[in-house]
Amino acid sequence: MSAPHGPTVGDVTEGELLARILAVLAGASTAVVGPGDDAAVLAAPGERVVVTTDTLVHGPDFRLAWSTGYDLGFKAAAVNLADVAAMGARPTALFVALAMPARTTVAFVTDLACGLRAACDRLAPGCAVEGGDLTASDTLTIAVTAVGVLDGRAPVLRSGARPGDVVAVAGNLGAAARGLAVLFDRFRDPEGIPVAVDPGVLDVAARADLAAQLRPEPPVALGPAAADAGATAMMDVSDGLLLDATRLADASGVTIDLSGIPDGPALRGGEDHALLATFPAGASLPEGFRLVGRVRDRRVAAVIVDGTPPSGPGGWDPLRDWDAVRG
Amino acid sequence: MSAPHGPTVGDVTEGELLARILAVLAGASTAVVGPGDDAAVLAAPGERVVVTTDTLVHGPDFRLAWSTGYDLGFKAAAVNLADVAAMGARPTALFVALAMPARTTVAFVTDLACGLRAACDRLAPGCAVEGGDLTASDTLTIAVTAVGVLDGRAPVLRSGARPGDVVAVAGNLGAAARGLAVLFDRFRDPEGIPVAVDPGVLDVAARADLAAQLRPEPPVALGPAAADAGATAMMDVSDGLLLDATRLADASGVTIDLSGIPDGPALRGGEDHALLATFPAGASLPEGFRLVGRVRDRRVAAVIVDGTPPSGPGGWDPLRDWDAVRG
Repeated sequence: MSAPHGPTVGDVTEGELLARILAVLAGASTAVVGPGDDAAVLAAPGERVVVTTDTLVHGPDFRLAWSTGYDLGFKAAAVNLADVAAMGARPTALFVALAMPARTTVAFVTDLACGLRAACDRLAPGCAVEGGDLTASDTLTIAVTAVGVLDGRAPVLRSGARPGDVVAVAGNLGAAARGLAVLFDRFRDPEGIPVAVDPGVLDVAARADLAAQLRPEPPVALGPAAADAGATAMMDVSDGLLLDATRLADASGVTIDLSGIPDGPALRGGEDHALLATFPAGASLPEGFRLVGRVRDRRVAAVIVDGTPPSGPGGWDPLRDWDAVRG
Repeated sequence: MSAPHGPTVGDVTEGELLARILAVLAGASTAVVGPGDDAAVLAAPGERVVVTTDTLVHGPDFRLAWSTGYDLGFKAAAVNLADVAAMGARPTALFVALAMPARTTVAFVTDLACGLRAACDRLAPGCAVEGGDLTASDTLTIAVTAVGVLDGRAPVLRSGARPGDVVAVAGNLGAAARGLAVLFDRFRDPEGIPVAVDPGVLDVAARADLAAQLRPEPPVALGPAAADAGATAMMDVSDGLLLDATRLADASGVTIDLSGIPDGPALRGGEDHALLATFPAGASLPEGFRLVGRVRDRRVAAVIVDGTPPSGPGGWDPLRDWDAVRG
């Protein structure tokens, strides 16, 4: 997964680089006015839009030895698409602010654009990159803003869970965290410096975990499906089920009583980008959701796991937990 | 303009820092669902929204010796509000992705939030920060996405200028570039390293230029006013009038014939965030716009200045022109 060779962004003008990116994105726009003007114009049926933003930064969020441009574009899109889905909305547009060192290759940037486009095509058909910004920086940074529409649905908030509701999850729990452990354990040199990934040395399970870390595929279409099925609360699980269930429980003023989730990455690992939702008891869950618990009246503990309040660290805090030395 | 002291973002959790930021923003939200969930929900009257994104990066775009957190928040908001206005739209929401080193002080971040809020209150009342993202990074980066609504207007594109139209500008041309020259000429030490700004040593004109560079006040309300007055094309002048008029002329397939703009910063300086617009001949220009030329049939030169195609560099290209050594 070494970086591509060829000309760098320092060798070309902004206009030339933009033309290369737009060639990758050509034909995908679904906007009223797509890329190229001061701003894009998007359709907003139902007179409401959903907007969210999330950033990947070289160092805390990714390493170039481990991720290709394609991986980074795919992941930057996917994590934002998941946040739109978690409101019960359908993503329609991405806006991408890319800040990069002059040594970044043009091929890396077009590969990143391919990854953005592939994530939209695969996870949220009809969604496309409709605008962005290119800037020089010492640190490669990909800030994505995603926009979605509700198609007449009410948004599904974190605060709507009620005692008696069932708790359900769609998507993979723990795989992304296990994939990160594979990178740290298997693909660093004796000094701890990341080295290129060779998937050939991994078994099938480890390869799947690695893919979940590098190119996550959140169940974006299940967000609107959950809203249609009557979901009372929903959120994207990005910082570990335990921490995010605590947030949903606190926002709703309830206790989430989980069962059958083993302690470890599935409970505490980050970057799952699964959907955590609550539904009225007896609701027919959309295919892809599985029951993981019940909503209770609020107790002292916001979350209970198999009858006991969990102890120990609850998830990933980017400001507290990022250690520039360890990486 | 030295950085504030006190605890750093490395000393607090993400939740604590977010609470400090939200305290600054409290009461400003005008959204259906404001900050705090997976995504914001915004009203979109007329079933269309305008979206744009623009980033400020430490080094190419600002220096901490020269800009306070307040200045940076104000400028990051202002440059995006100008892009929304340039479509004929009214800004309603900002989304802010902030990536910052662990040594950044909490006071700097809350100061930045104050600047974001102040720019909205002053330039686009009713617009507020409705969401964002906090990340660790080696390079302080502020990526802002702005959303606006058209209130039933058609968007004003770059491509609508027609021969016979008049060309008009609203806002200040050249001041921001002169302000940048003041910083480079007056506030660097003998080794060229930026030092703190002391406005007391400057005359009134230089202080105004400096303010235009550090805290630009684009004529945001004049964007919708121009649309209502029948503007046929419009854009934000961010890379110098000459380069941006060339872009508008190329998009419209016309030649822009400018007159009375002196060569120098007013013609070639960046970061004006003025509005360049074309109107049908005889249209009543909104107060704040002044005539600067005529739209002609397309000739070889996209832009003519006082009868002559201009020569020499045409504006600022962030990838070509940023020199990490000079700064």
